[in-house]
Amino acid sequence: MELYFSPLACSMATRISLYEAGIEATYFEVDSKTKRTRDGRDFRQINPLGLVPAIRTDTGEVLTENAAILQYVAGRAPSGALAPTTDWERARLQQWLCFVGTELHKALFGPLLDPNAPDGAKAYALEKGMAGLEMLDAYLTTREFLLDEFSAADAYLATVLGWAVVTPVQLSKFPGISAYLKRLYARPSVARAFTEERSLYLEEQARRATI
Amino acid sequence: MELYFSPLACSMATRISLYEAGIEATYFEVDSKTKRTRDGRDFRQINPLGLVPAIRTDTGEVLTENAAILQYVAGRAPSGALAPTTDWERARLQQWLCFVGTELHKALFGPLLDPNAPDGAKAYALEKGMAGLEMLDAYLTTREFLLDEFSAADAYLATVLGWAVVTPVQLSKFPGISAYLKRLYARPSVARAFTEERSLYLEEQARRATI
Repeated sequence: MELYFSPLACSMATRISLYEAGIEATYFEVDSKTKRTRDGRDFRQINPLGLVPAIRTDTGEVLTENAAILQYVAGRAPSGALAPTTDWERARLQQWLCFVGTELHKALFGPLLDPNAPDGAKAYALEKGMAGLEMLDAYLTTREFLLDEFSAADAYLATVLGWAVVTPVQLSKFPGISAYLKRLYARPSVARAFTEERSLYLEEQARRATI
Repeated sequence: MELYFSPLACSMATRISLYEAGIEATYFEVDSKTKRTRDGRDFRQINPLGLVPAIRTDTGEVLTENAAILQYVAGRAPSGALAPTTDWERARLQQWLCFVGTELHKALFGPLLDPNAPDGAKAYALEKGMAGLEMLDAYLTTREFLLDEFSAADAYLATVLGWAVVTPVQLSKFPGISAYLKRLYARPSVARAFTEERSLYLEEQARRATI
């Protein structure tokens, strides 16, 4: 499998999942501004929207969209490593993947992380996002993970919540979320993915500064 | 199964799917402003976020989030009626559910349909949403449905695109999308759901006008 990623972007959830499950993959870094891979290819030829993550399977097919990729990876992982095994718990996994993808990633952090978003869009996103964070905080206060065990939804949530530090979202106001995030970043798969992608992110910033 | 819906909201995708698959359900209308059901219950007791759709299964469990609900319904439908049967095509279904849910529903139409969203948020959403519409338009030009056959992702996409008429999104600029939408709204399940929910929507508007 090939993973097309940008450092610290939502594609880190796939890296965490691959590490967690012990699945080998080839990682291709994409510059989120130029939409080119480090080896000079036009990433829009792979995903016309230019969005990471995208994967290319061993049979050459391209799959995009985070929730779909995470479930695809879960299907290749040891049973239970990234997704529960019953139909009902799978529905719950999809519920959390959808919540993280729509309410947190797209609606809240999307505008906040976009330097081109106008102030009105950022303020609106911040205000609308509070209900989701409050619900999540209450939920996580009594739970270790989103489901009974670690799942790909935790890989996604940990990735998205990790962005808060560079936004006006103050996670310190949400003790349940803060404790969850601390637990998750102490997990070997998350710690390794974050450490590696932070290095790549800093290298990318340094390259951009010299252009 | 119980479906909690608001007229013409994204929950219409679930109604379309239920009609398409011939699955019986009890429909509870939720006022999206007051968050109360028509029979006077507080919908936030069912979904703390107050968002439709939510379903209650026959065993009493509540499931939220559109992509999860549509896949749950697909799992109860005749084989192939709402979702493909192979793992790979299921991944494609998840890809499209995620695209419609994040890029179109949440990022584009969310701010455009919200009377409380500031102009900056609406303009930003409209600008950011164009890439997704262009990709979709090119894709649909040569296809009848998102996948090889009708699926729950079409129910979701038809619902979301139906909102364009009350927003500045001009679908007439996208001939592939326009033709798709015309085909979909001629489909009995979609036509029935839309006709019924439009009536309910107008009744809701009339009730609000008399308060």
